Amino acid sequence: MADLSGVKALVFDVFGTVVDWRSSLISDFTTWGEKRGIKADWTALVDGWRGVYQASMDEVRKHPERGYKMLDALHRESLEKLVAQQSIKGLSDADLHHLTMGWHRLHGWPDSVAGLTRLKAKFIISPLSNGNVALLTEMAKFAGLPWDLVMSAELFEHYKPDPETYLGAARLLCLKPEQVMMVAAHNGDLRAAQKNGLKTAFVARPTEYGPLQKRDFEADGEWDIVAKDFGGIADKLGC
Amino acid sequence: MADLSGVKALVFDVFGTVVDWRSSLISDFTTWGEKRGIKADWTALVDGWRGVYQASMDEVRKHPERGYKMLDALHRESLEKLVAQQSIKGLSDADLHHLTMGWHRLHGWPDSVAGLTRLKAKFIISPLSNGNVALLTEMAKFAGLPWDLVMSAELFEHYKPDPETYLGAARLLCLKPEQVMMVAAHNGDLRAAQKNGLKTAFVARPTEYGPLQKRDFEADGEWDIVAKDFGGIADKLGC
Repeated sequence: MADLSGVKALVFDVFGTVVDWRSSLISDFTTWGEKRGIKADWTALVDGWRGVYQASMDEVRKHPERGYKMLDALHRESLEKLVAQQSIKGLSDADLHHLTMGWHRLHGWPDSVAGLTRLKAKFIISPLSNGNVALLTEMAKFAGLPWDLVMSAELFEHYKPDPETYLGAARLLCLKPEQVMMVAAHNGDLRAAQKNGLKTAFVARPTEYGPLQKRDFEADGEWDIVAKDFGGIADKLGC
Repeated sequence: MADLSGVKALVFDVFGTVVDWRSSLISDFTTWGEKRGIKADWTALVDGWRGVYQASMDEVRKHPERGYKMLDALHRESLEKLVAQQSIKGLSDADLHHLTMGWHRLHGWPDSVAGLTRLKAKFIISPLSNGNVALLTEMAKFAGLPWDLVMSAELFEHYKPDPETYLGAARLLCLKPEQVMMVAAHNGDLRAAQKNGLKTAFVARPTEYGPLQKRDFEADGEWDIVAKDFGGIADKLGC
């Protein structure tokens, strides 16, 4: 293992790494749909929604002249298209808002809160997520995530894996990139973090995409830490 | 009392309102000076340092072409001048850094942590301080302040009482200004917050400046809440 004695802060990818967005949303929407009397294949909606996530951020990258759009706004735009495509009927504007805010109501993986709590005793812990600040703040309260602060792509007006996000996080913390460790369940996120000088920790979340999962079953880079879960990262960092 | 049922987030002035910067710094520097063998009138240094605080931020406002400078940088510049003026001898570069980082090692007032903890159960709580993000983050860990997120003038590249800070906080939280309540021991801060549409809560901290305190012994505006301490705010907000 590399020398990690200089690491002062751990920054976390959130969707998939800290929270189980897919199961949380399917469960939330299924319960809500029954009460509200809306029929839909909620699993298909959730999978379709996440399926257009990267493309929606690419549109922001390709059109800087339109200004930065926060993830809540991208989620809402994508949802409206999917509802039409999947012929989901009877949704009011308030319903569309409620579904969009579903991304604020996600549950942690079973090890997340306990692991973060251990890591917080020794390190600054923060999300470094494409979710906007309000989304991450409300999610933290909902799921009990004990962040020290909330860092979001929104603060840098750039989505990961743009370098501005990783370097922006280090800058806000007044740390060198190598004093910051990125924690993610996605090899691509860690590759970008490492390229920008951050230390890296990988945890596998093999059920993130359910039956649709195609990648990230295991570490495929030279990451500083590879662990089974956040407790494993805490073990390796001596927390 | 005004209708406060729409308030979702409380944002706090920090220096003087949440933490007792003066006693904390005098105690920290006195202990350190004895160990380090540096003789100085630490009380005079601390009072002088805070005395040039507003002027140092005014310089940033007057010279936007120089770019925003975070408070750590302003503190360091002011310290170097004061050390020369007060003829404090023997300070190395590392010593000057240690003293500057003293602003990250401030203790809460006796009611701060308990009051914030009560308020956090019902509201989003965040600093909205001229301190930079790293300063506020380290202070929160040092003093046990249970923020949900850390909002700083640094995020808006404007110091309070510039409108960009109050409105920027509401924007990041995706709230209307009237859904955010500013908590401060300084009437001037609340006046600016109120002018920008925020709700307001005042707590008196009559010993903040020690014998030099000249103002803010009591509320002098039409604030939504006036309380003795954070516990009193929690009482009035039904926490």
